[in-house]
Amino acid sequence: MTLETALAELERKLGPRFTRATATLAQYGQSETHISGGLPDAVVFPRTSEEVAMIAQLCAKHGVPMVGRGAGTSLEGHALALNGGVAIDFTKMNQLLAVYPEDMLCVVQPGITREALNAELRATGLFFPVDPGANATVGGMAATRASGTTTVRYGTMRDHVLALEVVLADGRTIRTGSAAPKSAAGYDLTALFVGSEGTLGLMTELTLRLHGQPEAISAAVCGFDTITHAVDCVIATIQNGIPMARIEFLDTTAVEACNAYAGNTLAAQPQLLVEFHGSPVGVQEQTERFAKIAAEMGSTGFTWAQAAEERTKLWQMRYNAYPAVLALRPGATALVTDVCVPISKLAQAVEETRAEIAQSPIMGPILGHVGDGNFHAILLVDKKNPVEMAAAKHLSARMVERALRLGGTITGEHGIGCGKLDYMAAEHGAAWDVMGQLKRALDPACLMNPGKMVRQT
Amino acid sequence: MTLETALAELERKLGPRFTRATATLAQYGQSETHISGGLPDAVVFPRTSEEVAMIAQLCAKHGVPMVGRGAGTSLEGHALALNGGVAIDFTKMNQLLAVYPEDMLCVVQPGITREALNAELRATGLFFPVDPGANATVGGMAATRASGTTTVRYGTMRDHVLALEVVLADGRTIRTGSAAPKSAAGYDLTALFVGSEGTLGLMTELTLRLHGQPEAISAAVCGFDTITHAVDCVIATIQNGIPMARIEFLDTTAVEACNAYAGNTLAAQPQLLVEFHGSPVGVQEQTERFAKIAAEMGSTGFTWAQAAEERTKLWQMRYNAYPAVLALRPGATALVTDVCVPISKLAQAVEETRAEIAQSPIMGPILGHVGDGNFHAILLVDKKNPVEMAAAKHLSARMVERALRLGGTITGEHGIGCGKLDYMAAEHGAAWDVMGQLKRALDPACLMNPGKMVRQT
Repeated sequence: MTLETALAELERKLGPRFTRATATLAQYGQSETHISGGLPDAVVFPRTSEEVAMIAQLCAKHGVPMVGRGAGTSLEGHALALNGGVAIDFTKMNQLLAVYPEDMLCVVQPGITREALNAELRATGLFFPVDPGANATVGGMAATRASGTTTVRYGTMRDHVLALEVVLADGRTIRTGSAAPKSAAGYDLTALFVGSEGTLGLMTELTLRLHGQPEAISAAVCGFDTITHAVDCVIATIQNGIPMARIEFLDTTAVEACNAYAGNTLAAQPQLLVEFHGSPVGVQEQTERFAKIAAEMGSTGFTWAQAAEERTKLWQMRYNAYPAVLALRPGATALVTDVCVPISKLAQAVEETRAEIAQSPIMGPILGHVGDGNFHAILLVDKKNPVEMAAAKHLSARMVERALRLGGTITGEHGIGCGKLDYMAAEHGAAWDVMGQLKRALDPACLMNPGKMVRQT
Repeated sequence: MTLETALAELERKLGPRFTRATATLAQYGQSETHISGGLPDAVVFPRTSEEVAMIAQLCAKHGVPMVGRGAGTSLEGHALALNGGVAIDFTKMNQLLAVYPEDMLCVVQPGITREALNAELRATGLFFPVDPGANATVGGMAATRASGTTTVRYGTMRDHVLALEVVLADGRTIRTGSAAPKSAAGYDLTALFVGSEGTLGLMTELTLRLHGQPEAISAAVCGFDTITHAVDCVIATIQNGIPMARIEFLDTTAVEACNAYAGNTLAAQPQLLVEFHGSPVGVQEQTERFAKIAAEMGSTGFTWAQAAEERTKLWQMRYNAYPAVLALRPGATALVTDVCVPISKLAQAVEETRAEIAQSPIMGPILGHVGDGNFHAILLVDKKNPVEMAAAKHLSARMVERALRLGGTITGEHGIGCGKLDYMAAEHGAAWDVMGQLKRALDPACLMNPGKMVRQT
């Protein structure tokens, strides 16, 4: 058996960093969400790019699927080994390899988590801003084109990966991009691999853009009587060129969940949580201008959080929104939806989603990175109850259809994985076939994360 | 003859918007620079996406090369029809199709020029910032991943094209991206087409990000005794998080050329031209902080230009740098180089280039978008003098080699075209083969701008 030959060779080469232990394999068949299945035949823990290339060469030779995995925090089953094969766990490739303060860049291995990276960067005065909530690995974040709370100001992973080392399906290692801030030299391979979810290659080294830690930060929370007023406030703020570093939306149910979980006393109405970064003077000006716009949009309960401690409390509440929502229904599983629309359509998309959830048997608070037109409903279900699962999946499908109808996308930041493959044709039409052509060009045997991203032939 | 069949059919369908007139064809065999050659067999002027698809379908059927062309301002011979075929002139597809002020987006046909676009946008309070100097078409700018003076603040074309309609080599029309501000849904085809120089498809519609016209603008010019001090000033400004909207560098020779051309009296030393955008308070703060940093780096002759008229004069001088340099040697042709390096290596790259030009028989002022690590030497040559041409090409090759040695790229913004194909292997290694694989996947007969971008097989 060629699979067995490949695995025996991998075990010989990697020793204790190779395993077929049943309990471990079972772990890799699980994900953060209701999506599971697809056990790998083995798990390997490479330490170097060379080892990844060796693994890929062996797998290519023997026709064995390869599925990369970071912290396992993806929400659409990206790292499930649907066709078996080798799960490549990158968590031992977790080094910060270099920092270039003058260029505001760093070079990392893919398995470093964003929190570990920022802890290591602290003394340099620089930071890596992309913040999807979970303490994901940077490689996983690049593979899924992650974004999050700070994207309105700093951008997504697309804007932060400047160069890559990638191991291809045939075991070749290539380098894309450079440390130059921009380039017009050829196809943008870096952008092609970012967001490709391990289906075109395995990232083994990333050059990341960094930013100076802001001199001053201030944050605020303010309530609105309607979702539309909250979104209008965000639109006006953007149009006025006020650079928000974060602007997060919580609907009434989400606010109630956070209040109950953290002992807060926010008014039970749509709330915006906002943060500004800059010089002391700049932040002062931004906050004042934002307060004026918010007041014009009828905001109430406006509260500043300028002290670090108050800000921490505010954002801790936001970070804990997920467990807070889960606590609304102990024992429930979350089906976390994710769509993104043009910001002019955001209020409509959220209002219609809100109304549909209200008419369903499902509880589902809504939160959003509203500066990006991106929002999530966290649908709470008993995953053993087929009626509830069907209702939740129906709501999710309706959100996706609505997003497309409004000119948006089926996923703002969670990616496709297993969960959204069926919507790719609706979003991309013939362009989805083009993705398939690219996939076949680089991975004709479909060994890289098979069953994901492209049309199954 | 299948070429003749295709052309006859195109003539029948396009009528007066098809030509084989010798004088017109000859025009399309010229470029802005010393690079020329490669006459098309015909020129067509489509008006709609459907016409472009029809042209591509006919060309595909009959194996006829297709070469897109905008304003013809590219500098590396991008639009030369090296294998003959049909030149597709997009200048009649020059409409602003829609503006979405709340989403800060517009939809354009590829043939609109950036100046025409901004003229049409003026009343909306929005503007399109990418400014490569020439009044290029937006489609051409996207095809070459153009950037320019404002990139340090606003980014390149890569950051401004949110969605595309593209006609492929086989005549299929696809749409990439959406009007949502971000997406994690599949391969980033938009980024793949941006910068592909017409070798993967023809852009027929572009959705572009816009920005609010700044409330306040101020500009300044300041001199430094060395290139290194000027660059150090730029690095410190970036590290301090001061958002420069433009930061342009002129070396001593370029300053002298501008002085002579426009009757300015800038000191004959390395000069920085800088501009700040923002609120009145923000701009005031930025300019003061910049002035302080510049003073610390030993700047002299610091002059503010806050009135619109003074700013216009300052930037007019920068825009006229190219004719000003050409005027240094009447009758000469410019060989315009373009490299980009990590900003920490910029002073070294410029100093070494400066020294090498000084030792050559060629006159070559240096200008740069220093916030991006990007600079140009404008080498003045008598293109009929083979010794001079050889010397200039040698200088250009040395700049490219130096940029790569310092971790940079062979072109920051001008692209590959005919002029830089020979350097692609040196920059990309095995990744260049991957570009070839992608090209063959989408254009197996190599009909889209043949002879460009990828390795010739």
